[in-house]
Amino acid sequence: MTDAVVDLNADLGEGFGRWRLTDDEALLDVVTSANVACGFHAGDPVTMRRVCEAAVRRGVRIGAQVSYRDLAGFGRRAMDVPAEELAAEVAYQIGALEVFARAAGGSVAYVKPHGALYNRAVHDAEQAEAVVAGVALAGRLPVLGLPGSMLLAAAEGAGLRTVGEAFADRAYTAAGTLVPRGRPGAVIEAPDEVVARSVGIARDGVVTADGGEQVKVAARSLCVHGDTPGAALLAARVRRELAAAGMRVEAFV
Amino acid sequence: MTDAVVDLNADLGEGFGRWRLTDDEALLDVVTSANVACGFHAGDPVTMRRVCEAAVRRGVRIGAQVSYRDLAGFGRRAMDVPAEELAAEVAYQIGALEVFARAAGGSVAYVKPHGALYNRAVHDAEQAEAVVAGVALAGRLPVLGLPGSMLLAAAEGAGLRTVGEAFADRAYTAAGTLVPRGRPGAVIEAPDEVVARSVGIARDGVVTADGGEQVKVAARSLCVHGDTPGAALLAARVRRELAAAGMRVEAFV
Amino acid sequence: MTDAVVDLNADLGEGFGRWRLTDDEALLDVVTSANVACGFHAGDPVTMRRVCEAAVRRGVRIGAQVSYRDLAGFGRRAMDVPAEELAAEVAYQIGALEVFARAAGGSVAYVKPHGALYNRAVHDAEQAEAVVAGVALAGRLPVLGLPGSMLLAAAEGAGLRTVGEAFADRAYTAAGTLVPRGRPGAVIEAPDEVVARSVGIARDGVVTADGGEQVKVAARSLCVHGDTPGAALLAARVRRELAAAGMRVEAFV
Amino acid sequence: MTDAVVDLNADLGEGFGRWRLTDDEALLDVVTSANVACGFHAGDPVTMRRVCEAAVRRGVRIGAQVSYRDLAGFGRRAMDVPAEELAAEVAYQIGALEVFARAAGGSVAYVKPHGALYNRAVHDAEQAEAVVAGVALAGRLPVLGLPGSMLLAAAEGAGLRTVGEAFADRAYTAAGTLVPRGRPGAVIEAPDEVVARSVGIARDGVVTADGGEQVKVAARSLCVHGDTPGAALLAARVRRELAAAGMRVEAFV
Repeated sequence: MTDAVVDLNADLGEGFGRWRLTDDEALLDVVTSANVACGFHAGDPVTMRRVCEAAVRRGVRIGAQVSYRDLAGFGRRAMDVPAEELAAEVAYQIGALEVFARAAGGSVAYVKPHGALYNRAVHDAEQAEAVVAGVALAGRLPVLGLPGSMLLAAAEGAGLRTVGEAFADRAYTAAGTLVPRGRPGAVIEAPDEVVARSVGIARDGVVTADGGEQVKVAARSLCVHGDTPGAALLAARVRRELAAAGMRVEAFV
Repeated sequence: MTDAVVDLNADLGEGFGRWRLTDDEALLDVVTSANVACGFHAGDPVTMRRVCEAAVRRGVRIGAQVSYRDLAGFGRRAMDVPAEELAAEVAYQIGALEVFARAAGGSVAYVKPHGALYNRAVHDAEQAEAVVAGVALAGRLPVLGLPGSMLLAAAEGAGLRTVGEAFADRAYTAAGTLVPRGRPGAVIEAPDEVVARSVGIARDGVVTADGGEQVKVAARSLCVHGDTPGAALLAARVRRELAAAGMRVEAFV
Repeated sequence: MTDAVVDLNADLGEGFGRWRLTDDEALLDVVTSANVACGFHAGDPVTMRRVCEAAVRRGVRIGAQVSYRDLAGFGRRAMDVPAEELAAEVAYQIGALEVFARAAGGSVAYVKPHGALYNRAVHDAEQAEAVVAGVALAGRLPVLGLPGSMLLAAAEGAGLRTVGEAFADRAYTAAGTLVPRGRPGAVIEAPDEVVARSVGIARDGVVTADGGEQVKVAARSLCVHGDTPGAALLAARVRRELAAAGMRVEAFV
Repeated sequence: MTDAVVDLNADLGEGFGRWRLTDDEALLDVVTSANVACGFHAGDPVTMRRVCEAAVRRGVRIGAQVSYRDLAGFGRRAMDVPAEELAAEVAYQIGALEVFARAAGGSVAYVKPHGALYNRAVHDAEQAEAVVAGVALAGRLPVLGLPGSMLLAAAEGAGLRTVGEAFADRAYTAAGTLVPRGRPGAVIEAPDEVVARSVGIARDGVVTADGGEQVKVAARSLCVHGDTPGAALLAARVRRELAAAGMRVEAFV
């Protein structure tokens, strides 16, 4: 028996205009927190509005998935954005999303950087501080990120609430960091393994590293990916297995 | 002697990144309402933040100058944007600006469409309704526009407060509408004439049309242009003459 | 027995960055002319390069599918672009594509406007002239468009070669024009019907209008759509049936 | 008496839509090579066309000033663009400019990266190779850059002609590299000093470093900046003094 609780978060609304990427409706039936794209790497205003409405209907928390301004690169190309610009760009995106969250009867409940900005803010103190400055400008929201990252350190330093997350479909090193994408085995595709790791992380706080070691992972939230075929089905299975293992699946705010 | 009151509004923050257009600081010393570009035709987040801070410091009202998504055309190219998209785009821009207004200790106090959207919403009921729907999504703000326009009619229909404006440097027809840009004489450049017309409109509610007729113009706000050399100086002179004519120059909210 | 010949054209490369829309490889196995998106409504440089290479490998003609600058609207929102700007934007897109066509061992062989620009240039003489001016700037290429359109008239007036096309999956009026999208029945979805109309248009120069009348359609090229599921399969079937009906399927240049 | 020859290059056409930055006409009266912005950091199609026409009229060489895709940052924010994307983006820009150069009766005669891409390609071998791959795709043009840079090394490796340039208004280190912008004294503003250094570099191949040392600088071209007030006047004075010092001012192609 366990009283443990875990949040499930996924990236949503990552289309733009004519293009769609994620099955937003299906994912919103599974996750407890929706990282909504805000227009800089993806996410047009109509989609933002629809996702917010659908999230509020289901009681799913809305988070601002902020990014570098890079539609062409889907926010996956690291950029040397000066701190003042980055802070303002982050705040801009949060504000834009807030309109749709509020119109739907909710509010933006947290912030999570996307893609290259997420990765950069793990180790780049200046950009981490800039993201946090942008969050603070927009309203002192909780920050969702990698445990041990500069981003969460900066958020704590600024007095913001921080929430650590883990990835059930990403390989970990013995040091507890993610194996970089691009390396073989970085992304775990076998559904059974993803499910097993989800339960291990959420219930036991442990994941098997790429060298076979057991590594501690402290994560209040588990990130499931939504941009692959079958993603929503896999996420639903993860959620069922978490429940079967005695976990409560609940948002962190 | 008169107890009349008039607002002075100008477009501000119309740079983008490396480019600057308006002398924001000088204009903010003159106007009572600042129409701040929100990123779709101009206005990067850093500029939006700075303009909001400078406006709040001076007690100048902040308005969202919403536009078609058209940086390359500066929002001056009319677009057939479907109503749902247009409403969401308008709301997006207002929300983005609201973050900076609030962080500066103020708030977005009104909405005014820019350029081609302004002109289209004068006579296009569908787009006027869409703009108003976007405003309503973002928070039921007053709408600043042309008296007699579809835009103000739609805003009234939605129960929003409306504020009519006049242009001291634009020629009027006998019907009280603006002579379209592009026509000879559409823009009045002689400073003395601009000043005289400002006083005539604000104090007497009358302007001389292009055929020489006296036309009634009911305007709680007077728009002065900021994107020409000497614009801030001319605006300052307009303000002095309005005061000398016994007008109070005050924002409408 | 017939010696008639018909071209099959389709829109390709209509992804952008992370987003994909069309199954380019499968369509290139079927069509004889590829309308390649050039970056303004869709089409990133990597995709443009790949599509050109794949087209040249198969001997498929490369056309520049030029558009309004409108990624967010996929080029489907008509815009009042001044003629000088529109001409230069058209030329810019053709030039960008030409680099990849030439690097692949081919060249841009024709120009076809996309979406709202295509529709606008049917009846708007000024924009039609501007498109043609852009084509002429870039190299006096043939123009593919709707028979009877202002676009083809302007192209002829400028001494450019014109090529008329028809749409097997669009309803026609008795006057031989397209039933506007949005109206019920405007798009024909039943595969059998699309195939039958293709043969009717290509072999007999006749299509059944929405009121049941037989209408003459003179089209050297037939447009098949690529952005729906099963599009490539349907296009392949159209091609087979055209061949079975004794038509040669060949590009027009 | 000397038979030395030097090219004068400047960045031109760096406006976008409504915004202007450089006095293109005045600069074109002075320089022998025009680095024309191609739309990714600045440079709309109409401006590109006009600059090309004005350059050809004066016999000024046209170069493609290629950049990261970053209008908001004016191409001054370094980006981790994957090599394949960067190469294609570079080729795209060159092709777009080529249309206007050719329509004006000229051609794109060389390529020079802009801003952050220029700086990155000094020391980043992968991006340098990608830029060169893009140039090769578009037509094996000469590459203008910093002597000793990875960019010129990669261009030589690919068999492209390389042209070294120096900066009369930038401080140099004893090692012959540029003092990074942002450091005090990095940019030399005193006109007399800029002129004196121009002659020293062009005639004698020597510049005084920030520690007072004399450093050798081998540069076939001298870059003058165009985006500051008085830039064209200063450039004209540099050109006069170079002539007075016995130099021929001529393009390198």
